[in-house]
Amino acid sequence: MLKTDLSAMACPIARSLDKVGEWWSILILRECSYGETRFDAFQKNLGISPNMLARRLNDLVDAGLLERRRYSERPPRDEYVLTEAGCDFRPVLLALLAWGNKHFAPEGKMIVLRDRISGEEVQPTLMDPATGAVIDRARHAVAAGPAAPESTRLRMQRMAERRAAAEAAA
Amino acid sequence: MLKTDLSAMACPIARSLDKVGEWWSILILRECSYGETRFDAFQKNLGISPNMLARRLNDLVDAGLLERRRYSERPPRDEYVLTEAGCDFRPVLLALLAWGNKHFAPEGKMIVLRDRISGEEVQPTLMDPATGAVIDRARHAVAAGPAAPESTRLRMQRMAERRAAAEAAA
Repeated sequence: MLKTDLSAMACPIARSLDKVGEWWSILILRECSYGETRFDAFQKNLGISPNMLARRLNDLVDAGLLERRRYSERPPRDEYVLTEAGCDFRPVLLALLAWGNKHFAPEGKMIVLRDRISGEEVQPTLMDPATGAVIDRARHAVAAGPAAPESTRLRMQRMAERRAAAEAAA
Repeated sequence: MLKTDLSAMACPIARSLDKVGEWWSILILRECSYGETRFDAFQKNLGISPNMLARRLNDLVDAGLLERRRYSERPPRDEYVLTEAGCDFRPVLLALLAWGNKHFAPEGKMIVLRDRISGEEVQPTLMDPATGAVIDRARHAVAAGPAAPESTRLRMQRMAERRAAAEAAA
């Protein structure tokens, strides 16, 4: 974990990063989204040490992304199941997948997303469901939300002004 | 950086994580997507130590996500500009933003995405541009791609079989 307290930052990206902790956590969430639930399977698929895996699973349970469920009493054994918040991490995983396939797969794609109805490969794309537009730097911009502190509000305003000036000059 | 070599994993998610290195790198990419380019601005906005910032900027340049550009010769000063691969990281940032806003903003949203044409708040959503369908666990599944090694192909096949069996039983 970072020493810096990301959860205190007035930024939903920083807070999200605070929850997933570090790379191992993201790869464990990937395993869960592939349907794995058990310690042994995580360990085998990730090549992670048992100590590190136990710590990361505890963190993910504490963060509310995984739920621990006892599936055997003798011997006592737990499995790990995605919570609603854990399930909702899937778009982040798929955005990473799409980015990796586009830029870091010189030998071709090793994993793709498929539409189970048509069988076609899908390019998962961030869009606005209200307009059907692909999210695009020119059209969609971040802005202060209702709970933004004054410093965030000022910063977003300066960004918008700087951008408007650049567009007027172009 | 991790000691484990994520870039060797047959997984585009792991390779993507290998490129962005760690949380600071993601927050620096966030700053760049906000239009910041300069060392001083990154340092001020992130509260990161100069040493750590210099290391992370070097890593991001080496990973091909940022380009270093000299903007002053006397004194010598560089700025950092997103490459195409760096720009293409934006959907990952916005997926983290949406996830954070949904689950970790009990006091309300501090940052939102807006449509600059309508002024409306946008819910950035992962969709299939070919069908217009929202990416959904029931319909869209990961599968082996053309460059998948045998082990990945077998694993994806087992996952699909296990899932089909579960659906048939339900």
